Amino acid sequence: MPEDNMDTPCMVTCTAPMNIAVIKYCKYTLNVTLKTTTTVAISRSFKEDRLWLNGKEEDISHPRLQSCLREIRRLARKRRSERNPRSTESVGLSHKVHICSVNNFPTAAGLASSAAGYACLVYTLAQAFGVEGELSGIARQGSGSACRSMYGGFVQWIMGSKEDGKDSVAQQVEPESHWPELRVLVLVASAERKPIGSTSGMQTSVQTSLLLKHRAEAIVPHRMVDMIEAVRRKDFPAFAELTMKESNQLHATCLDTHPPIFYLNSVSQHIIHLVHRYNKYYGETRVAYSFDAGPNAVIFALQQFVPEFVQLVQHFFPPDRNGEDFIKGLPVKSAALTVELKQSIGLEPLPKGVNYIISTKAGPGPLVVEDPSQHLLSAEGLPKKMV
Amino acid sequence: MPEDNMDTPCMVTCTAPMNIAVIKYCKYTLNVTLKTTTTVAISRSFKEDRLWLNGKEEDISHPRLQSCLREIRRLARKRRSERNPRSTESVGLSHKVHICSVNNFPTAAGLASSAAGYACLVYTLAQAFGVEGELSGIARQGSGSACRSMYGGFVQWIMGSKEDGKDSVAQQVEPESHWPELRVLVLVASAERKPIGSTSGMQTSVQTSLLLKHRAEAIVPHRMVDMIEAVRRKDFPAFAELTMKESNQLHATCLDTHPPIFYLNSVSQHIIHLVHRYNKYYGETRVAYSFDAGPNAVIFALQQFVPEFVQLVQHFFPPDRNGEDFIKGLPVKSAALTVELKQSIGLEPLPKGVNYIISTKAGPGPLVVEDPSQHLLSAEGLPKKMV
Repeated sequence: MPEDNMDTPCMVTCTAPMNIAVIKYCKYTLNVTLKTTTTVAISRSFKEDRLWLNGKEEDISHPRLQSCLREIRRLARKRRSERNPRSTESVGLSHKVHICSVNNFPTAAGLASSAAGYACLVYTLAQAFGVEGELSGIARQGSGSACRSMYGGFVQWIMGSKEDGKDSVAQQVEPESHWPELRVLVLVASAERKPIGSTSGMQTSVQTSLLLKHRAEAIVPHRMVDMIEAVRRKDFPAFAELTMKESNQLHATCLDTHPPIFYLNSVSQHIIHLVHRYNKYYGETRVAYSFDAGPNAVIFALQQFVPEFVQLVQHFFPPDRNGEDFIKGLPVKSAALTVELKQSIGLEPLPKGVNYIISTKAGPGPLVVEDPSQHLLSAEGLPKKMV
Repeated sequence: MPEDNMDTPCMVTCTAPMNIAVIKYCKYTLNVTLKTTTTVAISRSFKEDRLWLNGKEEDISHPRLQSCLREIRRLARKRRSERNPRSTESVGLSHKVHICSVNNFPTAAGLASSAAGYACLVYTLAQAFGVEGELSGIARQGSGSACRSMYGGFVQWIMGSKEDGKDSVAQQVEPESHWPELRVLVLVASAERKPIGSTSGMQTSVQTSLLLKHRAEAIVPHRMVDMIEAVRRKDFPAFAELTMKESNQLHATCLDTHPPIFYLNSVSQHIIHLVHRYNKYYGETRVAYSFDAGPNAVIFALQQFVPEFVQLVQHFFPPDRNGEDFIKGLPVKSAALTVELKQSIGLEPLPKGVNYIISTKAGPGPLVVEDPSQHLLSAEGLPKKMV
């Protein structure tokens, strides 16, 4: 427990990974090195709870945020009264908190970062308030998929049947070290025009799509078994084919929703064709795609095929500025493309269709950052100047 | 039977309607006034079988075409020998045929015209060779959906279970006079770029889409019953909702195909949103859409709502040339749009997204054209100069 006195806030910094669903329902995810870092400071000198996200102060009164804060404080109080009344005495439960959170990937990427954000918030708050044990349930009050960011590597979410969701838990299936050759590329697609509202899309799908019902009952359970087995055996073609089928079937049920929901745009369709034609050219499944509630593609490939595929993306989606800053994250070697390969793909290039690529791989679950210089808040409890 | 001598060919001209599927599998269609007209001429002076489609001579050796020709000649021979050896004697079965066929809608529309084309060909050949009775089976050898163009109005296709398809028949459910207020608009969408190959798409879907299997077995049979009932009662909202759900579910199964098939482009998506927002604005279902293997939309609406909706299409897809020639087919009155309506739709206009609109309605089945001046071939058996 960090120490606390009148002048120095108690301060804890943690990270939590972003999760990428490969089975899209009753989910199975890969947690990657893209992550959120959060610092929580607690001090009797703070006048009110405050929150900064990616350098900007935000309204902390959001109900989901409040729900997480309230729940952690309740557990801390319970723990103090039940077990050891003095263990967390130094952290005043009535003191205000300052929270500061940043992502290590561009927010403009349009990636669903709230899962990592809430997982990190809850994990860090729990550390700060000395709360232990299963935190998935609290994280889920922030974001439905935050519980999957509470572990590293491959994580399975077992949906329960209870109304209150208390039997719904996430568990690690394979650690992040299990499949070191596996690489993940996020292809950030340019939005053609303003996306057309998809609020409460999933809820409408559940209510109106007859195909979704069948998918959930009769298809996903088998695929979950096959996926766990493919990952266990590190069988890339099996993993890749299942991942692509899952993505397409998710979007099929979006289209079967009434009124229908479209997340894939023409750039997404282009990427899908590129992947299938690339695999066809080599006569084996070397690359897979997965799409969530937006046009960005998540690409899975074994390390050895990444350079060529990235080069191919640059060829068919010629970037704005000569490829500068086109690849973010883990470095990718350059590669040459053969004329046969380019001709065999035979797609019309789509200039600026992909804004940039984020390169990542399997990453750990939430971690405490031990180095105090990494705190995002100063000793005064205000965000440090970002360099 | 037209007469035949050394100099004047025996000549018959018929029309057959284009069919639009509203239940997309085990189909239920509306046959419209868009049609193919075909003239068949038979003469001992012709040196070879010849074919002209929309003013251009085409290769008559296409296996499907040959199959229809062979089958009609076989039936004519059978009929002559069995029933009345002299009735069709004047039409020599060994004589060559000249066939000339035109559509009353632009071929560039990308409409699936082969169904009407083969239905008309088979019907006209049968008239010319004096063959009577059920011709659906022969028409199906040309195009799978040609049998549905053998009747007018609302037609149901009952798929049989026999391998040879001989128990697969089309039957009229309601005549074209049943629902005179119902109008059909074909919105011909601009192709964004070359379509990406979808050869044998349906076959791949049947083989790979788990959702298609469920749809065919558990969903379509119920929808067929509901659709027949909605049309019988002329219940537009019920007809419209089912039609849209069917279209979206068809395209959902295309997306669930591996590799996935995309027929809807961004113009199609725009049209879908326009229809739903229009209906939402009025709080009732006034317009429906349906899409087949391409980006063109077929719009269904009752006559009274057509002018406003067409005006809305012109507003959100501003045409190239001041709206000139934007509407083809049945005339559409002009209408004014309120500011509230335009604002409520709130879509970004997509200039030239819709090339033009073809306006049509329920039409009759195949018909013999009695006026000899309407023959498409001259007395010499060659295409007349088109005006």
